[in-house]
Amino acid sequence: MADPRFFAVAGPFTLARLAEIAGAEIGEGADGEALFDDVASLDAAGPGQVSFLDNKRYVEAFAASRAGACIVAPALAARAPAGMALLLSDEPYRAYAAVAQAFHPVPAPVAGVAASALVDATATIGEGTRIEPGAVIGAWVELGRRCLIGPNAVIGAGCVLGDDCVVGANTTITHSLIGARVTIYAGVRIGQDGFGFAMGPKGHLKVPQLGRVVIHDDVEIGANTTIDRGAGPDTVIGAGCKIDNLVQIGHNVQLGKGCVIVAQVGIAGSTHLGDFVVAAGQAGIAGHLRIGSGARIAAQSGIMRDVPAGATVGGTPAYPITEHWRQVAALERLTKRKGGA
Amino acid sequence: MADPRFFAVAGPFTLARLAEIAGAEIGEGADGEALFDDVASLDAAGPGQVSFLDNKRYVEAFAASRAGACIVAPALAARAPAGMALLLSDEPYRAYAAVAQAFHPVPAPVAGVAASALVDATATIGEGTRIEPGAVIGAWVELGRRCLIGPNAVIGAGCVLGDDCVVGANTTITHSLIGARVTIYAGVRIGQDGFGFAMGPKGHLKVPQLGRVVIHDDVEIGANTTIDRGAGPDTVIGAGCKIDNLVQIGHNVQLGKGCVIVAQVGIAGSTHLGDFVVAAGQAGIAGHLRIGSGARIAAQSGIMRDVPAGATVGGTPAYPITEHWRQVAALERLTKRKGGA
Amino acid sequence: MADPRFFAVAGPFTLARLAEIAGAEIGEGADGEALFDDVASLDAAGPGQVSFLDNKRYVEAFAASRAGACIVAPALAARAPAGMALLLSDEPYRAYAAVAQAFHPVPAPVAGVAASALVDATATIGEGTRIEPGAVIGAWVELGRRCLIGPNAVIGAGCVLGDDCVVGANTTITHSLIGARVTIYAGVRIGQDGFGFAMGPKGHLKVPQLGRVVIHDDVEIGANTTIDRGAGPDTVIGAGCKIDNLVQIGHNVQLGKGCVIVAQVGIAGSTHLGDFVVAAGQAGIAGHLRIGSGARIAAQSGIMRDVPAGATVGGTPAYPITEHWRQVAALERLTKRKGGA
Repeated sequence: MADPRFFAVAGPFTLARLAEIAGAEIGEGADGEALFDDVASLDAAGPGQVSFLDNKRYVEAFAASRAGACIVAPALAARAPAGMALLLSDEPYRAYAAVAQAFHPVPAPVAGVAASALVDATATIGEGTRIEPGAVIGAWVELGRRCLIGPNAVIGAGCVLGDDCVVGANTTITHSLIGARVTIYAGVRIGQDGFGFAMGPKGHLKVPQLGRVVIHDDVEIGANTTIDRGAGPDTVIGAGCKIDNLVQIGHNVQLGKGCVIVAQVGIAGSTHLGDFVVAAGQAGIAGHLRIGSGARIAAQSGIMRDVPAGATVGGTPAYPITEHWRQVAALERLTKRKGGA
Repeated sequence: MADPRFFAVAGPFTLARLAEIAGAEIGEGADGEALFDDVASLDAAGPGQVSFLDNKRYVEAFAASRAGACIVAPALAARAPAGMALLLSDEPYRAYAAVAQAFHPVPAPVAGVAASALVDATATIGEGTRIEPGAVIGAWVELGRRCLIGPNAVIGAGCVLGDDCVVGANTTITHSLIGARVTIYAGVRIGQDGFGFAMGPKGHLKVPQLGRVVIHDDVEIGANTTIDRGAGPDTVIGAGCKIDNLVQIGHNVQLGKGCVIVAQVGIAGSTHLGDFVVAAGQAGIAGHLRIGSGARIAAQSGIMRDVPAGATVGGTPAYPITEHWRQVAALERLTKRKGGA
Repeated sequence: MADPRFFAVAGPFTLARLAEIAGAEIGEGADGEALFDDVASLDAAGPGQVSFLDNKRYVEAFAASRAGACIVAPALAARAPAGMALLLSDEPYRAYAAVAQAFHPVPAPVAGVAASALVDATATIGEGTRIEPGAVIGAWVELGRRCLIGPNAVIGAGCVLGDDCVVGANTTITHSLIGARVTIYAGVRIGQDGFGFAMGPKGHLKVPQLGRVVIHDDVEIGANTTIDRGAGPDTVIGAGCKIDNLVQIGHNVQLGKGCVIVAQVGIAGSTHLGDFVVAAGQAGIAGHLRIGSGARIAAQSGIMRDVPAGATVGGTPAYPITEHWRQVAALERLTKRKGGA
């Protein structure tokens, strides 16, 4: 169960209500009126908790779990221990997410501006918004309703944030227009100058960075990630994108809708991604490229050419993923045949 | 045109004045007295704006642009649309930088110390310097003239910064001596302990880090970059170096003049770079190496040996770049010949 | 010698006392009563300072050094310049660490809460703890004795820190239970939501992250590193782990005792490391893996499978290190034989 020092809990809920929330079917023989008080992992859950099985690696933990109920795909239901109530779903992780949200709804911020926060007189603050201690809100900033601005966060002059945004502690935002329901974690830097210099042997001449960062609705941006503003065009993050920690997004980059950018990825300047592109951890994408919608980029790979829509690529330099794995296998065979001492 | 919420604009300027600023020649038939009011990208510029063409990828956008004027290399001038005034330059990007700076000069900070900033009584603050809310300036700190210290920035005891420095919001600087015209973006960490432990099976013993960080004039350091202080010798960043976001620079590292270090590069302890070295994104350089002046290191490459001056290297482990590309091609051929399914 | 603007110095100490501190033997002919006033690097040390030789790369600098005394392995003692007093140790770097700590003991914090710090009325602050300006300490936080909380640091509700912890400036900690003698550098983010989404073509559904971060005693965490809290289980950092700058540690990751994680490493969710694992710079470890105790992971390598205890691996994808180097050599030979232009 979640540590009550850190997490409030709603409920309890009946199995029937949880099935409804999860969009799941109750497994044979389970009691729809049984009450559950929280979610928990397979090994930590007890009779009063609901767990889930999504990754086949954990089938043994499922079979040994003492969870009172578990969300599971129908194909794996037979591995359940006796007496466990099942919630059958073709998307167990998604179903679990809905159930966990029900037990742990995000509380609305308590409106108000901390005494030590500094809000410029020209800024407009939406109803229900909370500004925590030490935060600094610049001139002409517009904050939507029910936003939460964390302690010591800094929002520079002219920025606009929509309703229900969360800005983490010690975060910095400048030169940005941000939609609704955007969550920005601690230490994120958005809107600083892109890395633009006219390089030369006598010194590198600074190129003024005159664009903005435009972030659409329902985006999440992980801790200590950096997103530079455009050089002239804008840097754009499409609706529903999820960006992990320590990601670098260069000037003029555009992400379509629903992209997933995993930790420590770097996307160089002026590259455009389509919709629902996935870039796994530590991948690097060179500048001025076009990555088609639905493309998938393997962890640590290095993208130096355009990637067609729907393609999966890996390696440095990156190849179509089957070709990449063939190369890995060929190199492995080579040393097996010719291998030294 | 730049969003007036975020950018002030100077001008307008005549084409003749812009040519002078850019060190460019006015193209045939253009009117030197025509007035322009801003810069803009090729696709966004209208008749009153000046654009530029530097990357051949964008020749089509140039040919279709509605920009009133454009800075371009003579060789590409013939592709200009009818009626566009040209500013001919052998270095269009550098020329554009000068023009953009003219339209968007960086305003001098408005001198003063915010009421919520905390400046130690022993610190000395140069004339014209501005210290924003929540900033904390430690004992015996010396700040030059016309510096701008951002909100919630922290400058530790004894640090010295020259004239015209900019320190971003939420930035931390300790144990550092910093020259003039140095720009440090938000979230940068300079001067913390290097990663020095005498490792052993019974535990890792902390090695006191007794050096400093010395940063020379005209350096830029990108958001959330980390530069550790020396272990005994100093960590040194040479004049005119440009360092991008999320870069790691270990203890005792020395960079010569004018190095360009792109985002997410890591340079391990005690490695020395010469002048005008370029390290592209996500490259890693092992410790205790010597990288000669003018060397160029490809993106994501892993440097494990010294690199001679002027060399270009790539791959992990890195080879001279032509050898690296030969290896890539050889591996590709191998699977084409022996390819699996 | 260390810059007195930044470092206080204890001593002087006699050579005999230093030998005792270092667990070293005084070399033949040296005067145990000779006094030394500081440590310094081989090239900077003078007659009054103690240096050390640990890395064979620096034997020439040792032979040319003007240091009055030097800590060195017996095997290299013969290279010492005439007149240098030697402190003979089988672990010169560890011995140096002890000596340097003696000259530069870390001062205890001066207890007190800065006027501009905000400490919630329900928080408990241990004796001797110092809270610097602008720090924000949330509800029910428990801080141990002699802790130092840096300027503008933010510690969220419910967190617990043991005795003698140091939290750097502009750092953010939430949802965490932290042991004694833990040092957290500037800009670290601990305890934010892990990257958990049920991904889907209609949008990515947030999965509540209901675990904590548990950090055991004697851990160091480098600047701007990010450690996400668990999704249900906890994220756990074992006692004595040393983590460098800009490292990403995903949700549910567990590190055993004494792991060394070098800068810019990424460890994806639910991976467990045993004790004393070393991961070199920029390595990436995929999720849900088991890395055995004593394993060593080469810089920039990409780990996609479990690694047995004691193994050394390298490359992307990673192989046992000798196999990896064989692959590198095979590829090199391939181009030498078949090489193009």
